Amino acid sequence: MPLVRISLLKGKSKDYIRALSDSVHEALIEAYGIPSADRFQLIHQHEPEELVYDENYLDIRRSDDIVIVHIVAGNWRDTATKKSLYKAIAQRLSRKPGLRPEDVQIILSSNERDEWSFGNGIASYVKDEPPV
Amino acid sequence: MPLVRISLLKGKSKDYIRALSDSVHEALIEAYGIPSADRFQLIHQHEPEELVYDENYLDIRRSDDIVIVHIVAGNWRDTATKKSLYKAIAQRLSRKPGLRPEDVQIILSSNERDEWSFGNGIASYVKDEPPV
Amino acid sequence: MPLVRISLLKGKSKDYIRALSDSVHEALIEAYGIPSADRFQLIHQHEPEELVYDENYLDIRRSDDIVIVHIVAGNWRDTATKKSLYKAIAQRLSRKPGLRPEDVQIILSSNERDEWSFGNGIASYVKDEPPV
Repeated sequence: MPLVRISLLKGKSKDYIRALSDSVHEALIEAYGIPSADRFQLIHQHEPEELVYDENYLDIRRSDDIVIVHIVAGNWRDTATKKSLYKAIAQRLSRKPGLRPEDVQIILSSNERDEWSFGNGIASYVKDEPPV
Repeated sequence: MPLVRISLLKGKSKDYIRALSDSVHEALIEAYGIPSADRFQLIHQHEPEELVYDENYLDIRRSDDIVIVHIVAGNWRDTATKKSLYKAIAQRLSRKPGLRPEDVQIILSSNERDEWSFGNGIASYVKDEPPV
Repeated sequence: MPLVRISLLKGKSKDYIRALSDSVHEALIEAYGIPSADRFQLIHQHEPEELVYDENYLDIRRSDDIVIVHIVAGNWRDTATKKSLYKAIAQRLSRKPGLRPEDVQIILSSNERDEWSFGNGIASYVKDEPPV
């Protein structure tokens, strides 16, 4: 169910990008309990002038390895679950591909259960009411 | 009012992309009743490593023709209307450019009436209160 | 806190893109009161077939200089504040880089305070409860 957009600066290898993708997905499985097959990610690689970030906001030192992870996911997670996701993503990205946790930015956008269609033109998470 | 992002793998022709764009727009007119002139779409074409999808999630068989349609639209549609949109998009894309319905993924993100400005620095959908 | 995506057609200079970025950021400081260091922007440059817009929707005349500014920001702003943001962005972009206000489209997507992590795997805007 999540739709994940990962933005970074150009210049990394395909293996590096795969590691980013894998780690974010594994963190979603761990913290949100999504199925392993529920994987839909879009990677956006930017020129330097196209990714603007502050190097010091909130006293966190960021570098050009910065990754911005923007996740659309269902709105039924509570704050504790979201916090566990942040922790899991930062931990896994620090292991693979080896990011500094300071460089991991995560933004969530929540939506409703009836706002997902995974093919065939149907609302994948809506149970149809039985006929009256 | 909708802002539509359409993501796909690189390699398709301009005519193909135009067909995607047209069909999604026609489905929004049909299902959401938006004006024909209310058309704002961003197409993102990705390298293979930049678009990650599961080939089998929810037992739907996806291929490299996968299209991810992410639509920001006003939050006043009900579930039935959203379902009619999924159906209309999948049907129209299967006709033009000829997608398998399995390859049509749709995600909605809803927002408020005061969250749209279509130019001139004003809130396009907010009626100003009369002076007291 | 805002995550800003700015979309435009390819062909502009780096200085032009920097001016877009600066003006949108200055408008957010002015209208939303965000800290100057709270700056995270992604610029998406599109081929002509990848940015589809209506030239006349709502009787506003748009050109190929169109800019679509999509901002994810916290949901605690009221309509008056959002309107001041639209005005500030259009005014500042008309000064620098010199856009016609008709070409400035703005869409907001609101989210919650616990949906932001600016590094280190923590929820940046959530105050942890004291231990009981």
